[in-house]
Amino acid sequence: MKRSLLLAAALLSTSLAAADKPATPSPGEIVAAAPAAEWVRIAADDLLVMDLAPGPKGQARQVVIQLIPAPFSQGWTGNIRKLAAAHWWDALSVYRVQDNYVAQWGDADGEDKARARALPAGLVAVPESAYLAPFAPGMFRYRYTNWGRSEAIIPRGPVMLASDGSLPEPPPAINHGDAYATSVGFASGFAVAMRYAPSRGYLDPLAGSDADQPEAVWPVHCYGMVGVARDMSPDTGTGAELYAVIGHAPRHLDRNIALVGRVIEGMQWLSSLERGPAPMGVYTDPADRTPIVSVRLASELPAAQQPRFEYLSTESESFLRYGDAIANRRDAFFIQPAGGVEICNLRVPVRRVKE
Amino acid sequence: MKRSLLLAAALLSTSLAAADKPATPSPGEIVAAAPAAEWVRIAADDLLVMDLAPGPKGQARQVVIQLIPAPFSQGWTGNIRKLAAAHWWDALSVYRVQDNYVAQWGDADGEDKARARALPAGLVAVPESAYLAPFAPGMFRYRYTNWGRSEAIIPRGPVMLASDGSLPEPPPAINHGDAYATSVGFASGFAVAMRYAPSRGYLDPLAGSDADQPEAVWPVHCYGMVGVARDMSPDTGTGAELYAVIGHAPRHLDRNIALVGRVIEGMQWLSSLERGPAPMGVYTDPADRTPIVSVRLASELPAAQQPRFEYLSTESESFLRYGDAIANRRDAFFIQPAGGVEICNLRVPVRRVKE
Repeated sequence: MKRSLLLAAALLSTSLAAADKPATPSPGEIVAAAPAAEWVRIAADDLLVMDLAPGPKGQARQVVIQLIPAPFSQGWTGNIRKLAAAHWWDALSVYRVQDNYVAQWGDADGEDKARARALPAGLVAVPESAYLAPFAPGMFRYRYTNWGRSEAIIPRGPVMLASDGSLPEPPPAINHGDAYATSVGFASGFAVAMRYAPSRGYLDPLAGSDADQPEAVWPVHCYGMVGVARDMSPDTGTGAELYAVIGHAPRHLDRNIALVGRVIEGMQWLSSLERGPAPMGVYTDPADRTPIVSVRLASELPAAQQPRFEYLSTESESFLRYGDAIANRRDAFFIQPAGGVEICNLRVPVRRVKE
Repeated sequence: MKRSLLLAAALLSTSLAAADKPATPSPGEIVAAAPAAEWVRIAADDLLVMDLAPGPKGQARQVVIQLIPAPFSQGWTGNIRKLAAAHWWDALSVYRVQDNYVAQWGDADGEDKARARALPAGLVAVPESAYLAPFAPGMFRYRYTNWGRSEAIIPRGPVMLASDGSLPEPPPAINHGDAYATSVGFASGFAVAMRYAPSRGYLDPLAGSDADQPEAVWPVHCYGMVGVARDMSPDTGTGAELYAVIGHAPRHLDRNIALVGRVIEGMQWLSSLERGPAPMGVYTDPADRTPIVSVRLASELPAAQQPRFEYLSTESESFLRYGDAIANRRDAFFIQPAGGVEICNLRVPVRRVKE
């Protein structure tokens, strides 16, 4: 079954290569054409709205963060909801910006007990075990395993749709070779990595049977992801000090720090901040910090001010085709499709909607 | 032989885990302790010095780029030397900054024939075939192949030094699982990817025999890499319009665009620029562009103004140990070493030297 699919894919790829190059939609065109039913509304209670002080030219600088849904990091996102409800971040700052790494915000005086802002009551201390989530049946529609890339047998043709337009099961193999995990995929709209028990057949490129389940799953540090700064282990951070990734994915932080969401709008207001001169990008002059005006859950804002977003379901057919199109760019600019895509370059489409 | 090495590594790893955690040097400590003989001076003729107009606070903004050495992209770097000698970039600008992608500079009016600045004589048109370099014996000391990560057998212990302190041959396996190439490594101090003929045994985790040679090698789009903007194929760009990667590695550009070097100092002056509001990050208001004061080869500057740099040889023992330490972080902060490192997170150490 698996072998015949691979063979079919190879044949399909060959026959297309021999024919005239068909007009194929770009990744953006696939997303634009995705039916409404494939988009998932993000709940207002899952949106964190951070207003920074106006920029150097007086620009409004709003950063919108989508909190990560269950089963990931729920202890920390619970704390963050409490901190936002307490308006805890208001008049604090972005106090650390390290090039190709992170922009971090919260209480710049947090390590000085005499000057630190008191935390609201009711925050929980989350155990390190919560960096991982247990696998649950139905968690993924697609998983991709590390598999040495074979120019000969990984299909480079279009996505393998069946003749009636349905998706094959298992899905086509796209090379997601990953240096940090046995396997990667998407769960609840977020990029995740996973680990299998050593006895599992995780070298199988089309691992998809119920018998082949990962033993743990975790979100990964891609560009724009938001994490919880912490002290030395066993501290795991409360969620009061947060950072966003502004450079190449620091995947070595996976499973070492809690990830609690991703920036879905206004990322440039964090990524273009001046880098701090001290080690780790800390500003030596407090005047260089970027003031935070307020941080609110969108659900706390007046309805007219609530930003509304939706993301393309990572379980949808369009998402699969989008991933294929990114892995095998057929836009006119490209002369050499990659044949694969690293998990952090397969960014989940998110768009603002009016109501 | 290979099997016994893996077994030895597994045993070593186990015995260390059972003992007390030894004090192990961090990646930075390994680099700091590397002997002088392991550092390679970068020739002044390979350094491109770009002075931008002072920053918003009057900061000097100098960006230093190391041009990539042979056998890579020599047609384009030859053009760039001519452009620098002609002072072609002086009084042009950084005219495009796209978040999580690139900052691009050159002639913002280059596409308007009436206003474009004339190019110097003698630039060559480089063929697309030059995106790849042929493999040459001795090109690599280490290569890493895509290999499904096995928690059980990829060593997590310290680097496998022989009892006399020498390095084993082949070197230890670090997971460099890569979504874009059969195999990755370092050549002439730069991260590269490579492709094998389909008949080669590239699933071998310790591929290192002379018989197992790649058929093509190319530099990869990591953070800070500098590339040559181009029009549609078969145009390959002259080198007049350049960009630096300011976000997550856009590896899909590999083999589609020439890479000509990397930013080795002053990266923050490009990465923290305001993002442009038009599609692809282009500034709609020319006043938003960042003026370029001058671009010179360091060899053209007065000796007192020449910046001097050296990089840690990617053929050195310290580089191997540095890579191992990054892949298996044992610093006190880390509770879960990754067990692998993606090629763009294994950044070649570069340092400024006095003379």
